[in-house]
This record gives sequence, structure tokens and C-alpha cells, in this order.
Amino acid sequence: MIDDLGFFAKSSELTCEEIGDGNLNHVFRVVDTITKTSFILKQALPYARTSKDMVLDANRCKIEAMTLVEQSKYTPEMVPKVYNYDDNLCAMVMEDLTGHIVLRTAMLKQKVYPKLAKDAAKYFANSLIRTSDIVLESKQKKGEVVRFINKDLCDLTEKLVLTSPTYNDPRKRVEKHLIDFERDEILNNEEVIAAFAKLKHNFMTNAQALLHGDPHTGSIFISENSTKFFDTEFGFYGPMGFDVGLFLGNLLMNAIYQKVKGFDRYYEWVKNMIEEFVDKFTLQFNSVWDTYAVEHYAKNSEAFKKQYLSKVLEDTAGYCACEM
Amino acid sequence: MIDDLGFFAKSSELTCEEIGDGNLNHVFRVVDTITKTSFILKQALPYARTSKDMVLDANRCKIEAMTLVEQSKYTPEMVPKVYNYDDNLCAMVMEDLTGHIVLRTAMLKQKVYPKLAKDAAKYFANSLIRTSDIVLESKQKKGEVVRFINKDLCDLTEKLVLTSPTYNDPRKRVEKHLIDFERDEILNNEEVIAAFAKLKHNFMTNAQALLHGDPHTGSIFISENSTKFFDTEFGFYGPMGFDVGLFLGNLLMNAIYQKVKGFDRYYEWVKNMIEEFVDKFTLQFNSVWDTYAVEHYAKNSEAFKKQYLSKVLEDTAGYCACEM
Repeated sequence: MIDDLGFFAKSSELTCEEIGDGNLNHVFRVVDTITKTSFILKQALPYARTSKDMVLDANRCKIEAMTLVEQSKYTPEMVPKVYNYDDNLCAMVMEDLTGHIVLRTAMLKQKVYPKLAKDAAKYFANSLIRTSDIVLESKQKKGEVVRFINKDLCDLTEKLVLTSPTYNDPRKRVEKHLIDFERDEILNNEEVIAAFAKLKHNFMTNAQALLHGDPHTGSIFISENSTKFFDTEFGFYGPMGFDVGLFLGNLLMNAIYQKVKGFDRYYEWVKNMIEEFVDKFTLQFNSVWDTYAVEHYAKNSEAFKKQYLSKVLEDTAGYCACEM
Repeated sequence: MIDDLGFFAKSSELTCEEIGDGNLNHVFRVVDTITKTSFILKQALPYARTSKDMVLDANRCKIEAMTLVEQSKYTPEMVPKVYNYDDNLCAMVMEDLTGHIVLRTAMLKQKVYPKLAKDAAKYFANSLIRTSDIVLESKQKKGEVVRFINKDLCDLTEKLVLTSPTYNDPRKRVEKHLIDFERDEILNNEEVIAAFAKLKHNFMTNAQALLHGDPHTGSIFISENSTKFFDTEFGFYGPMGFDVGLFLGNLLMNAIYQKVKGFDRYYEWVKNMIEEFVDKFTLQFNSVWDTYAVEHYAKNSEAFKKQYLSKVLEDTAGYCACEM
């Protein structure tokens, strides 16, 4: 698999270290000690490392690679390059992002990234609209829906994110001081439960665009000048608002954390960055739509565009709340 | 293909007549002159008979057979039996419905069918809910969405039913006295155009249930005691309201026709039958849901069920208007 790439000379001296901390994948960094050329090798395991009874579809590595390849057509600077993918090994060779750190880690150290809001807005607006019926020809898009069917990982999201929060799921750990709040405001609240139900069924039926599927702050690598979305194994055709809402929900939880811990200046930055993201996403959404729309109504009806964006933002608010 | 069925004895004397008047299919009735046993043989052509340049995917016969087989699990008495289907020949052998006539023809002769509203309500409620995420397990349903992808015929509906009415499509024939009305109320009406756009995109993205896809009065065979939905080659996973709305739109147009032609008593029957259908559909919808729902929220939230039905009826009204 690696020979195929012609990445290294026959005389290279290679080192390999395991860098993954995950439970579900092997992740190795391979470096040529002379030229310093490097890449990442990621292999999906068909079981969880801590419990071999938990069986997972190794097909997720294929979905991850396909989603990155697809998104690299629209925002190549915002996803790691995929060099090769091998179906039998459930493994892919991808760009080494040394120099970046995981956004979740960075935010726990109160690091500021002036480009984050703008980059994320660009990534979501492009990857969502340009894989949807707004831009793709109707028959081609139906083929894409089939290619990205992702039964196992959608099932996880449907259960853990969109069902478990609303009932007494024994797998859930709720902190003691939140038990009363959870009972009164969620478990016994018919209106909240019906809202969750609507969002879950929208997630299951609304094949609107190719999603990242899990864009929390642990799925983003960042440096001063660069933002990269990775870990796209949850990719599938779903509602645009799910991606944007999950991203926002994670940022909002982080903002609350900063406030509670007394990092007031950083809290202000996170809060402003969230507002900046929402503004920039709206601008980017309109601009990508105006530039690339091909579908008849998308090209001809301003009223339709407004209505469409407002539904995406409504879904966003809903999924943001589910994630929190 | 016919030998495989063991339908006739070796000594049978068979007659065969072509009964199809369609442009896209061969339809034959085969009868054993002694036992009177009979069946229908339907073969999809890969081109239109009047114009061999118009290429159509012969896969539609497979979709038609699969949809009938699927729906026969839920309302076997309301679809013709499929005896055999041959992929290479694009042909199927199905139940002979001699004794029934096409509903469109019957309504032009002012025939009354007391069971029609009840039968149609039962057919739609069962075939829609029981193929949706309300009843099917999430992974199984995603497999069904793939099995029923129907690119070519969905494309036809998207263009002819959901786009063409709102612009100056040269293929369209508009009667002279309607030209002003069409221009003012549709072609130049931003609000109507945005509503069409929303319904078209809902049709393209919302994989809610397995639809008939084209249930106008020409796709229904009827007799005193029996109602059969056929011609299911437009079957695919789409919004429930499309099926119900298309059915209602055709009945409403028929009601208007009867009124204009002075068939006042028949007009009253059609109007009352439409009202009866809407009431019975609502009742059946609730009863099928309560009996078969498996999904967590569908089983546990009355508020969700109400909200879901009200969205189906909203879509129904929209597609009913598009069809008219």
C-alpha cells in the first residue's frame, strides 16, 4: 500500500510511532528520518480495543476517506489530503498535520485563533451547499446519497445524541446536582421530547447534503494559519443544520466552561467568535449559493433562498440544543 | 418465465391478446381457454413506442414489481399479485384484474363506489407508515431507501409536476382563457414559486416512506367490492404527503369537471367522498401508527404523532395544489 505511493526512496530510513489514543482505530506516523517526509497511516479496527465484544463496521474507514476526498474538491485547504485508501486493509494514508493541535486541547489552554470563525464558515457553506440538490444534478446527487449510506454510525448518533438524552438511559451518567433539572426540564417535558423526536426523524429522513457528521472540537486540527476538519467517519447525507448545530453546541459548552472557570477574557473571545461564525456562515452561504446554484428554483427565486437558509438555521438551533 | 410458474398444464390451450394502450410498455393478457385461468404479462420497453429517440430506463419494471411486492405485505387485497419478475426481460407476470375498470374511466361515466374512500385511506396509511422509520428498524429502512432509488422517474416528476408549472415551459399547453390567470397567479407570483420550490426540494430530499409515486385515477382499478392500486413504476422513498396530495389533486380536478359539466349529483358524491377520505385517512393513520410503531418516540410521544400527522397533511395540501 505504501510502496504504491512512491512516497519514499528505496534507500529511505523510516521510523514509525503509534500516535492514536483512540479505542477504535490504529493511528501511526511514518517519517523518513533523512528527508523528514512523513504521513499518517490510519486503520479502522472491526472491534473496540478495550472490549472486543463491541463490533463496529470497518466500512467507516472507507466513508471517512470518501468524505475527505469529496470535501477536498470544495475546500482543499481545510481537510487533510488523502494519499491512498485500501479497502481490504480498511486503512488509509493521509497528510501528516504536525504543527497543528486538536482544537479541544487548544481551547482548554485558552489559545486564540483569529481565523477559526471565518474558516469554519467557509468549510460548512461550501461542503454543505455544493453536495446538495442546489448544485448537483438530481440524478447524480441520488447516486451520492447511496454511496454515503452509513447505517452503523448514523445508528450511534440516532441513539446517543438524539434519543438517550430524553429518557432514563442506564448508560447515561448525570451529575447529582443536575438530576432534578434533567427530570423537570427534559424527561418530563412533553414539548422538549416532541422537539427531539422531530429532529431525530429529520436526521433519519432528510438527505440534504453530505455532512461531516461529527464536527466537535475534537475533530478539528488547528494552527495559527490553518484549520483542518478530520475524523469524517460519520459522513452521510443528512440535514445541513446537524453539522452546523453540532459545531456550535460544542463551542457553546466550551464558552460555559470558560465562564465557570473564571477565564473571563477567553470566554469573551469564544462568545464573540461564535457570533462572528454565525454572521460569516450566513454571508458565505449566500455567496456560495449565488456562485454555484444550478437547480432551477435555486437560481431564480430569492424568496426560496431566504426560506431555505432560515430552515437551515432553525435546524441548527435545534441540533445545537440536542448536542448540549 | 411462464413455464417456471407452473401456471398452466402442458395440455392447456392458451390465447394471448395485447391489451396495453400505453406508449412505454407491452401489456398482454394470457388466458387458458379451457380452465379460464389467466394472467397479465407486462414488459417495459427501453424506448417510447411512438418515438424511439425517447430513451427510458427499463429498470422501472423492476421498481414497479418490487413496490407491488412490498405493498402486498401490508394491504395484499389492494394491489395486484405479482407472480414472477424477470430482470433480463424487464417483464413481470401479474394478476389479471378482469372485472375491474380504471377509476378515471369509471368517473367519466359517473359511477359511484361506496368503498373507495375507505379503501384508499387504508392503502395509504398502511403502505406509508409501515415502510417508514416509524415502523422499520433504522438500518433496515436505509437499505430500503437504496433499493428503491428511482433516478429517471423521479427526474420526470421533478421536472413536469414540480418545475414546469411555474415558468414558460414551451412543452406546456395552456388553454387560451387561462393565459392571464397563469401569468398573474403563478408565473409572476414570487410566493407561489417559492412554495413550489420548497415542495420540490422536499420531494428530492425527504426519504420518509415508500411511495406509489403516481396514484392518479388512471393508476387505480376498481369494481363494486375491490380497489387495486397499480402502475407503481414511480415508486421511491419520498414524502408521504406527495402520494396523498397527488391522489386528492386528481379527485378535486374530477369534482370540478363534474360541476362544470352539470353532473350535480355526481359532483356531490365526489365532494363527499373526498371529505370522507380525509377523515378516514386521519383515523387510519392514527390506528396504524398505534398498532405498529416501533421507533422510541413514535411509541412514547402523543405530541410527536400529532405534529407528524399535521406535517403530512400540510405536505398533502401543497402537493395537491402542485398537481392541479
